[in-house]
Amino acid sequence: MNQVTVVGIGPGGRDQMTIKAWQTLEQSEVIVGYTVYVELIKELLPEKEYRTTPMRREEDRCRMAFEEARKGRRVAMVCSGDGGVYGMSGLMLTLGTEYPDISVEMVPGVTAALAGGALLGAPLVHDFAVISLSDLLTPWETIEKRLRCAAMADFAICIYNPASKKRADYLYRACMILLETVEPERLCGLVYQIGREKEQWEVLTLNELKDRAADMFTTVFIGNSHTKEIGGKMVTPRGYGAEKGDEHGTILPAAAGLSL
Amino acid sequence: MNQVTVVGIGPGGRDQMTIKAWQTLEQSEVIVGYTVYVELIKELLPEKEYRTTPMRREEDRCRMAFEEARKGRRVAMVCSGDGGVYGMSGLMLTLGTEYPDISVEMVPGVTAALAGGALLGAPLVHDFAVISLSDLLTPWETIEKRLRCAAMADFAICIYNPASKKRADYLYRACMILLETVEPERLCGLVYQIGREKEQWEVLTLNELKDRAADMFTTVFIGNSHTKEIGGKMVTPRGYGAEKGDEHGTILPAAAGLSL
Repeated sequence: MNQVTVVGIGPGGRDQMTIKAWQTLEQSEVIVGYTVYVELIKELLPEKEYRTTPMRREEDRCRMAFEEARKGRRVAMVCSGDGGVYGMSGLMLTLGTEYPDISVEMVPGVTAALAGGALLGAPLVHDFAVISLSDLLTPWETIEKRLRCAAMADFAICIYNPASKKRADYLYRACMILLETVEPERLCGLVYQIGREKEQWEVLTLNELKDRAADMFTTVFIGNSHTKEIGGKMVTPRGYGAEKGDEHGTILPAAAGLSL
Repeated sequence: MNQVTVVGIGPGGRDQMTIKAWQTLEQSEVIVGYTVYVELIKELLPEKEYRTTPMRREEDRCRMAFEEARKGRRVAMVCSGDGGVYGMSGLMLTLGTEYPDISVEMVPGVTAALAGGALLGAPLVHDFAVISLSDLLTPWETIEKRLRCAAMADFAICIYNPASKKRADYLYRACMILLETVEPERLCGLVYQIGREKEQWEVLTLNELKDRAADMFTTVFIGNSHTKEIGGKMVTPRGYGAEKGDEHGTILPAAAGLSL
């Protein structure tokens, strides 16, 4: 049976791909993806055939992959991070019903929450929520509700797509919603251009975060009520003895004021 | 400066590690970890020196790693999945303040939410929450609150540690809490032994899920109100045109009844 493999390539460089992702790309004849990510792969595997579509042409991109597979070619659809987190896995499976002769397989990858978390320290070691601020496909009210519920649950939060040119103030808006219930000193983190040359990260307070510039290559982390700064890093404790503050600072009372 | 590297090894097999994770292990002299995960690595790299501690001896395990690094040896601390998701990253950074001569670096990996999601289809393509049911280090009331908030937010949910011998009915209890507000037909997924020989997955309803047996090698997925079954897979739409149901079924009204 012909097949398209959806490959999560991680944050960018070859060494942050899984071995299986790399092997799948090496064995592919055609690599399909969003222009920016395809450029990253092209540098590593220049001899492949590449097909790209710009942003907002995701459906065309999927159909392109299925059409190539139908010709009997080995096709990889690349996604940054993981194809299953704001990636193309869902759309590929949905459109796949129109191509019953082609199977869709997934190769998972390191999504920005994990790659960015590793740079900042350990912000997501305990329960967390992942929320995209893009309202291209999601009503803004749904995004607001999710931010409020996540704060109420005392989840650590990882925010994808915090801003774009057209949505320059969305990170500010999200921070203002969180500040309704979360203290301004809450520890946060910001990672720019994960895994790329211009990679940068910063640990800061929620109050500082609200005035930071962000773009579509920024990933944002909001700590939970226990998150603390240790040696310049952002650390959410899991509750082990040594984390309880014997000699390393004090943990706040658990999820203060939560009631449902 | 001496260094310990916290390496997320993904779900198990070598091909689901990142290239960087594999290189780090290859270049290590001592590999420290929980017994079960160390056994997986030992098969691949039998010539290394291994140090293990059982569950609940996490602090000893970390100190073991720091002591080896202090001797000038190259040390890797391995975690299943990603060290930053219910892993050792946080405890390593916390205890690291006692070993200021040793730096702690993180190599992220594919956590069970991503590896299990890829098997089930695309359950986490939109906003989601990750919740552990283990109350060893977290009060059960906090876990209950997080389940309720996640359902209220209409997050897709990924559940880690759904049960153990001592907590045999925890998955049932969690499902009963979700059933207070979520319809019994809500699409769910269950993955056993991700990345291992006995790997198995199942797509089922929340009502069916509540009576399933689970253990510490099980990962559970609860869809959001839009999640549907497509070709036997679990798919959470992101909102693209083709997913809106023109010819592929109908999406439920967005996050019905949510108000805060």
